[in-house]
Amino acid sequence: MERVEQHASFGGRQEVWKHASPVLGCEMKFAVYLPPAALRGEPCAVLYWLSGLTCTEQNFITKAGAQAHAAQHGLIVVAPDTSPRGEAVPDDPAYDLGQGAGFYLNATQAPWAAHYRMQDYVAEELPALVERHFPASSGRGIFGHSMGGHGALVTALRHPGRYRSVSAFSPIVAPTQVPWGQKALTAYLGDDRDAWRTWDAVELVKTATERLALLVDQGEADEFLATQLRPELLQAACAAAGHPLTLRLQPGHDHSYYFIASFLGEHFAHHARHLLA
Amino acid sequence: MERVEQHASFGGRQEVWKHASPVLGCEMKFAVYLPPAALRGEPCAVLYWLSGLTCTEQNFITKAGAQAHAAQHGLIVVAPDTSPRGEAVPDDPAYDLGQGAGFYLNATQAPWAAHYRMQDYVAEELPALVERHFPASSGRGIFGHSMGGHGALVTALRHPGRYRSVSAFSPIVAPTQVPWGQKALTAYLGDDRDAWRTWDAVELVKTATERLALLVDQGEADEFLATQLRPELLQAACAAAGHPLTLRLQPGHDHSYYFIASFLGEHFAHHARHLLA
Repeated sequence: MERVEQHASFGGRQEVWKHASPVLGCEMKFAVYLPPAALRGEPCAVLYWLSGLTCTEQNFITKAGAQAHAAQHGLIVVAPDTSPRGEAVPDDPAYDLGQGAGFYLNATQAPWAAHYRMQDYVAEELPALVERHFPASSGRGIFGHSMGGHGALVTALRHPGRYRSVSAFSPIVAPTQVPWGQKALTAYLGDDRDAWRTWDAVELVKTATERLALLVDQGEADEFLATQLRPELLQAACAAAGHPLTLRLQPGHDHSYYFIASFLGEHFAHHARHLLA
Repeated sequence: MERVEQHASFGGRQEVWKHASPVLGCEMKFAVYLPPAALRGEPCAVLYWLSGLTCTEQNFITKAGAQAHAAQHGLIVVAPDTSPRGEAVPDDPAYDLGQGAGFYLNATQAPWAAHYRMQDYVAEELPALVERHFPASSGRGIFGHSMGGHGALVTALRHPGRYRSVSAFSPIVAPTQVPWGQKALTAYLGDDRDAWRTWDAVELVKTATERLALLVDQGEADEFLATQLRPELLQAACAAAGHPLTLRLQPGHDHSYYFIASFLGEHFAHHARHLLA
């Protein structure tokens, strides 16, 4: 592990680290915000942020205004990159496949299977690393945006008991039913639609054994709402399964970080309620 | 005027506009945040943000977290670009001269004099445009970062009575005495050091007729502190002239937007106290 950036921020410190990832078979960067409490050595719960298509570990830490909330609640915030990276890692010229578009799953198909194991990275390797190197308590929350909202929901639903809180901004709730998801699932998993279902929040809610409350914010002016995001599918699945969901449609809001920043404080409050209880 | 971006943000709207600037002889973009009160048509005071070297109208609106504060205080926030722009506008390959480095002055030397009139743009043309197109009251404040901190101090000091509040993050307080400033002043104004002094906050404080209180935050870990920024020169000049200055040295903080974001709420509170009094 090597620290490649550090900036004082709201009494804490925004850092970026790089490390060799055995799971992904490449070098990875992740961002970590250490609140004032962590700098004093107090154990802090860790909130994982998963970013959307084309993002790196930088987008969230530069654009969301997260540090003020993290400092206030005493939460460590970890933001990984969105895929394995590097010249040795397969890629695709499209923005929605390959590097920058890992979809937080474990690929089974060539040429992706060797490196594209983002689910194991964000759910296992990265938390182990974080909990070893920083003053982290055992409390974990997870949230994200768009592809990362999908990632947060799926990662929490696949790991009952591992996260105390989950939320999402404009998530891809049903990748098996929308173009972004179908393209990625076909490439990474092949044509077996049974395999697809294990990476789809709407499908996972149907059989979830843990009733982790979901908080989802969605902008009504989001250009991807009707084609790629379709939160009504999650709403129907949660209603049918009796899974707790708070879905909030936000008038006028688009898919951008201006939307995320506007409601991020409320997401932090949601996570803090569960993580600090 | 044409709106080229709009995003819902904290109950208000972040917009970007482009327009033909007669003063600069080119097309310009500026960002404007309209708080909820402005969307309701209520007259709001206007706070002008001047960015630093290499920035455009985008940096502040994407990285500073300003919209939350602007919404809270009911202030319109305008962020112009940092120089004239376009293929017809002279430029220099260096990051600290030409496009992206207008230094908020009116150039007198070839090839710059025809377009580089950023002082007239930010102090006159832009406010007139803003006050015509948006529900702006007559209250104006100004602040900025680095080259833009210099711009804010100099613009306020050169126009007694025009601004009710001024503040700066890591400003170039004495461009006549530091490399960034000396390079720019030589290029834009030639070798006449008497002309230079009229664009130097430390010089202007000596003869200021208006005692506008200056608030300056400066990171102690700023890599440009000792060579380019030198806030102690402003402190000495203000002490000698009896000019009110609050200079705060912030331990651990660097020159980045992480620093700006950390103290931006306090700057908004400072401006709101004066603008909404």
